Amino acid sequence: MGARLGDAGGPARPPVSDEAIGRDELALATRNHGLPLEALRYDLTPPGLHYVLTHYDIPYVPDTSSWQLTLNGRVRRPLRLDLTDLRAFPQVTTRVTLECAGNGRALLSPRPVSQPWLVEAVGTAEWTGVPLRLLLERAGVAGDAAEVVFTGADHGVERGVEQDYRRALPLDVALGDEPDVLVVHAMNGAPLAPQHGRPLRLVVPGWYGMAQVKWLREITVVDEPFTGFQQTVAYRLRQQPEEAGEPVTRILPRALLVPPGFPDFMSRTRVVAPGPLTLEGRAWSGHAPVTRVEVSADDGRTWRQAELAPDGGHPWAWRRWRSPWTATPGEHVLSARATDAEGHTQPLAARWNRGGFANNQVQRVRVVCPDPADNG
Amino acid sequence: MGARLGDAGGPARPPVSDEAIGRDELALATRNHGLPLEALRYDLTPPGLHYVLTHYDIPYVPDTSSWQLTLNGRVRRPLRLDLTDLRAFPQVTTRVTLECAGNGRALLSPRPVSQPWLVEAVGTAEWTGVPLRLLLERAGVAGDAAEVVFTGADHGVERGVEQDYRRALPLDVALGDEPDVLVVHAMNGAPLAPQHGRPLRLVVPGWYGMAQVKWLREITVVDEPFTGFQQTVAYRLRQQPEEAGEPVTRILPRALLVPPGFPDFMSRTRVVAPGPLTLEGRAWSGHAPVTRVEVSADDGRTWRQAELAPDGGHPWAWRRWRSPWTATPGEHVLSARATDAEGHTQPLAARWNRGGFANNQVQRVRVVCPDPADNG
Repeated sequence: MGARLGDAGGPARPPVSDEAIGRDELALATRNHGLPLEALRYDLTPPGLHYVLTHYDIPYVPDTSSWQLTLNGRVRRPLRLDLTDLRAFPQVTTRVTLECAGNGRALLSPRPVSQPWLVEAVGTAEWTGVPLRLLLERAGVAGDAAEVVFTGADHGVERGVEQDYRRALPLDVALGDEPDVLVVHAMNGAPLAPQHGRPLRLVVPGWYGMAQVKWLREITVVDEPFTGFQQTVAYRLRQQPEEAGEPVTRILPRALLVPPGFPDFMSRTRVVAPGPLTLEGRAWSGHAPVTRVEVSADDGRTWRQAELAPDGGHPWAWRRWRSPWTATPGEHVLSARATDAEGHTQPLAARWNRGGFANNQVQRVRVVCPDPADNG
Repeated sequence: MGARLGDAGGPARPPVSDEAIGRDELALATRNHGLPLEALRYDLTPPGLHYVLTHYDIPYVPDTSSWQLTLNGRVRRPLRLDLTDLRAFPQVTTRVTLECAGNGRALLSPRPVSQPWLVEAVGTAEWTGVPLRLLLERAGVAGDAAEVVFTGADHGVERGVEQDYRRALPLDVALGDEPDVLVVHAMNGAPLAPQHGRPLRLVVPGWYGMAQVKWLREITVVDEPFTGFQQTVAYRLRQQPEEAGEPVTRILPRALLVPPGFPDFMSRTRVVAPGPLTLEGRAWSGHAPVTRVEVSADDGRTWRQAELAPDGGHPWAWRRWRSPWTATPGEHVLSARATDAEGHTQPLAARWNRGGFANNQVQRVRVVCPDPADNG
């Protein structure tokens, strides 16, 4: 018997119940990366600090002048557009917080085996591009259209299935203008970096990262629900492998702290001096505006409401919050909890699912406040 | 008893002998990140793909106009320089490959517990700044000077020791001009990103990353060997904890492959079609120019010499290499091995040390070539 494609990987590993991370998970963690939490201080995440998750390799596109985006399927006038064509459409810039659907996965027990995020798979940028609805209007969507499928240039194998990365949106989301879904060519005013989709990507404000198709090369309007791997096998909320599961869609609320004081290198435990300080951080939700952030300094037993900054005209981006705290000698666990206008909030304990998606349990930040009287 | 500083972390964990990665190592792996290996295609690593390792937090420097660099100690004229002062000195730009001293650590068995790099802690950039020797000449180094100590603004605890990050160089290295050690303010023509040392850092061509002090705020000439934590406790090659150990200094040779074909998401195993292809990659050494790269397609049993590109006038940067290979159905392990002009080369098996430093064992890339006759 010869080698088979499935020999490259194989089926998903079942969740594992100890804390130890495998070599395969480590290989993903060293190439993908989260936001170092101290970078929550920035309104816009500086280049290189925004989280990155790529399923396969980052496509190599040294020359973007020949890149073409095709819009086809159930449309009256198929389009073939290069970057110059796209820049001739009206341009929109939107500040958007993106978060990986797998953020929080490595905190689950048993732990689903995939990219092992703790809480840091997030970032905020200003994305510039063409509203997707304008491209769809130009092409003329057929009356029987149901969904819009987006194909990236990234190619690989997952559980034995060779594929281009491909995801779909419902037609009403794709055509929506509150917010516009964008076909993006610039991030924070600069052409997209390779790892963020150079030269073109989708940005769907409010949705988890799996919808934000990078290296976008084809948009296909279809008349029935898309059943591709990333839509019906991956990115489903399941308790049992045989369930169809609910699709992962919009970002659940989350608040994170800028870690106070300074860290221990290995444990990342924080050290603060006794006395008053201001705790601060960011909070976001993809369902509705964040309306409340609460802070706890006793591992979630008691909470006090934080001061929430206005959204500054950026309803799809994280909001800053702050709350005073007086550190006393001893050990403390700090947490923050966001609630949005639709009443979604964060649980103290994780809601488990097999894929490890959408775990927005509250963050726990361990803080040591040394006693000044103790010189040990 | 009150809380103590040491409660934040504690002593180094002993090396562990299974493959499982701990939660603390994972927290480091999600915030630091390596070069995705497909990015070895670029001569200059694009922003955000260069490896990053920070011991503590990335300092927050929203306004660089008030940043001051002090040069003091055993000098006749202490200096205090802002960024404008530094730009008035002659400027040098050098292309340099940087690599973390801990690269390869997670391949060791038993595994030293720290940032768990596999092979990807590397990147190449063009760094612009002032030759350190010009600053030292301006200050006037005293006759009894022995070393030069560099202090960063990054602050934390490591094995119970609270510290600013601090490292020293021997005086002859600091004053050298082949190559110049640089006090750098720009990377690839742009101001330094926060994670690369904004606004000032040291670049010491040929040395591992621990010497490349970021967020540089003080340079101190001293008349005896520096005994700080990062010089005499960390970054030593030891077999036993009580040894003084040899210091970690210059980068040992390493060659890496651009992984051919496409990956399996979880295992990162590569899939290639049968037939001829060109293997390619990069090779570098901090001791002397790389003079030979060999490639193996049978897990290190046989080797053939690769074609090595000229250094293009960049002796401190990686060099491109290529080698033809014909993939045949089955499983293969690809490797590359670099040798430099001083005869340093790469071992097939790791040379173990307690800190997990300088492990330049040859990379192993697992490749599956499916049999076209097998539709499984």
